[in-house]
Amino acid sequence: MSEPPRISKTDKEARRKAIEVLRSRFLEIAEQIKKGNPPEILIPKRTLSNTVYDSQRKLLLLGDEKLKRNFIDLNESRRFMQTALMSSIIYNALVNDEYPTIRDLYYRGKHSISLKDETTGKLYEENTWDEQKESDSVIVDIEVFTSLLREEMLILSKEKGKVVGDMRIRSGNDVIDLSKLGHGAYAIEPTPDLVEFLDVNADFVLVVEKDAVFQQLHRAGFWKQYKCLLITSAGQPDRATRRFVRRLSEELKLPVYILTDADPYGWYIYSVFRIGSIMLSYESERLATPDGKFLGVSMNDIFGSKTKKAYLSEAERRNFIIKAKDADVKRALEIRSYDWFKTKAWQNEIETFLQKKAKLEIEAMASKGLKFLAFNYIPEKIQTQDWIS
Amino acid sequence: MSEPPRISKTDKEARRKAIEVLRSRFLEIAEQIKKGNPPEILIPKRTLSNTVYDSQRKLLLLGDEKLKRNFIDLNESRRFMQTALMSSIIYNALVNDEYPTIRDLYYRGKHSISLKDETTGKLYEENTWDEQKESDSVIVDIEVFTSLLREEMLILSKEKGKVVGDMRIRSGNDVIDLSKLGHGAYAIEPTPDLVEFLDVNADFVLVVEKDAVFQQLHRAGFWKQYKCLLITSAGQPDRATRRFVRRLSEELKLPVYILTDADPYGWYIYSVFRIGSIMLSYESERLATPDGKFLGVSMNDIFGSKTKKAYLSEAERRNFIIKAKDADVKRALEIRSYDWFKTKAWQNEIETFLQKKAKLEIEAMASKGLKFLAFNYIPEKIQTQDWIS
Repeated sequence: MSEPPRISKTDKEARRKAIEVLRSRFLEIAEQIKKGNPPEILIPKRTLSNTVYDSQRKLLLLGDEKLKRNFIDLNESRRFMQTALMSSIIYNALVNDEYPTIRDLYYRGKHSISLKDETTGKLYEENTWDEQKESDSVIVDIEVFTSLLREEMLILSKEKGKVVGDMRIRSGNDVIDLSKLGHGAYAIEPTPDLVEFLDVNADFVLVVEKDAVFQQLHRAGFWKQYKCLLITSAGQPDRATRRFVRRLSEELKLPVYILTDADPYGWYIYSVFRIGSIMLSYESERLATPDGKFLGVSMNDIFGSKTKKAYLSEAERRNFIIKAKDADVKRALEIRSYDWFKTKAWQNEIETFLQKKAKLEIEAMASKGLKFLAFNYIPEKIQTQDWIS
Repeated sequence: MSEPPRISKTDKEARRKAIEVLRSRFLEIAEQIKKGNPPEILIPKRTLSNTVYDSQRKLLLLGDEKLKRNFIDLNESRRFMQTALMSSIIYNALVNDEYPTIRDLYYRGKHSISLKDETTGKLYEENTWDEQKESDSVIVDIEVFTSLLREEMLILSKEKGKVVGDMRIRSGNDVIDLSKLGHGAYAIEPTPDLVEFLDVNADFVLVVEKDAVFQQLHRAGFWKQYKCLLITSAGQPDRATRRFVRRLSEELKLPVYILTDADPYGWYIYSVFRIGSIMLSYESERLATPDGKFLGVSMNDIFGSKTKKAYLSEAERRNFIIKAKDADVKRALEIRSYDWFKTKAWQNEIETFLQKKAKLEIEAMASKGLKFLAFNYIPEKIQTQDWIS
């Protein structure tokens, strides 16, 4: 029995592409040196003022402003050196079939550069970097400089998200049936573009914030009964889960519903899926799911409205509602000001929260029994289109 | 095509057993009431003084001291009520084929009990519990009272651990091949006793603290080359991962090696796998892996010894070693005093740390390239039996 090749075709192809881009971007810099010019790197500015919300595409994008890193400028030569060093480390990892993490990259580059002044004999020492914060920031520079996400350079991070449903994928050299994982689930790999979608039998995607709620819906057979792909971000979503959800939305045209606690932190999680972080807007173009819908838990679910009965009784509200703290109110005010929350439904939702100062965890909604959550609350919300977008 | 039954046989059997134990323990209390006696619950004391280290079995065990919860004692009636309430909620979840989390159980029981004094007309209100801390502590009482771990009562928690290797398991109604998961891995379910080990082709178990290191070893094909089951606890191990590792050690007689950062926190992770927490010694009997070995990173790996060359050069030590903080020293002194660390090798290890005040992350060891870690460092350590136990 012969072992299949360890590196899959998809992986090889991704490496080839990243190697090519890195090579050609840095060849340009080498050309500058050959011509006798001081080498410089032009990088799109990652500042708030250079971040634009494209309301057509519903994405946060970087504007046209660029900053110059000039090697012979004393203020910038250190950062120039760091960028070149980090790029060469990433390049070598790609060539050597490795999958480093950002922590690995930090360690691989961490050393002191010594220089002896030939005239005075004095020894100068300079550290490449001291803290991981520094090397991480260099990686982001390289991402915007090359337009390659770190995932495309096959840099790993901790796995957080999970998926289950009636779908077959190829990862590495294996075909995995996401409907045959028992009580378990497939951990979404940190290089989600290496996953190939083979076939899928699902009508929508349900993303739940909480791992334990995910497990319960999974064991209750929710995804089988309602033909969905069930995903958890296990809290604040990581980049891989965001990219995976985006691919399901974009490539398979599946509607995406997001279920979180009823509080500004839950809205923020929704916001990260839908648009990403303002300070990291360069990711948004490939990680965001602009059509993602907030399924709940909404203030209307808790308190009802003129046209809708609340899901909770007066006694349940008394027992389960958590009073909002100042930090919650502050976050709500921030979120209210985001362009992509300026719909009537969102403004109402936030207004109700500010009036009632009430938060609710999804587990409180499940206190009527898990079957209520799985077979009443969620399907009814989807069927009546009772979401916010 | 007919759908297989949702609840698996193993699951049904686990429910039946837990239901039976809960029933019989509380029937004893019902008997007391029928006989006209004030009902009381006898629970093993969970105190340091009632915790014994059994050096033969290498386990922390609860001693014989018991505490009495008496319903008609005013100081204890509230806790008695809480214990009975929580038990009935768990019982109902078992009967209804549910998998609650401890957070769900908190919400399900959270309400106010009202009592009207018939003579004065005054209304008394008492909350069942206010904080989850309270209801969690009641769950622990029920665990020691019934000798059923929460996992055996099918209570879920967040999933953290992952496993991959040449092994087939049954979970739910599915057979899962842990060698065919691409870049992904199987998330160890929070009810690890519902997993059935079908067949296994492995010589040992390697547990790595860090998720990212796990992923890298996985992608490098480590477990294929060295015939091992590869597991990560992704930091501090949860109960499910500990139970899973214990089962591999006990049922399959596989040696277990644990790889962490070189610092007191890493030793603590090893200690949790090996013996558990002193304050939760009742778990130890079923969660601990007393034969687990600390593979590294050890102080000897960093500095070498009379008989062994260090894995790091002088320059690497200068770049990579992190200076220990006061908190690290404090933890090291604590660990040094544990009975199960009183071997010569461990005392040397801790002594070296206290002298050098040096910590090292596993990623620093991998800075020579991941292949060094996977194909030199780890196999050499195992082959030369260079571990601490």
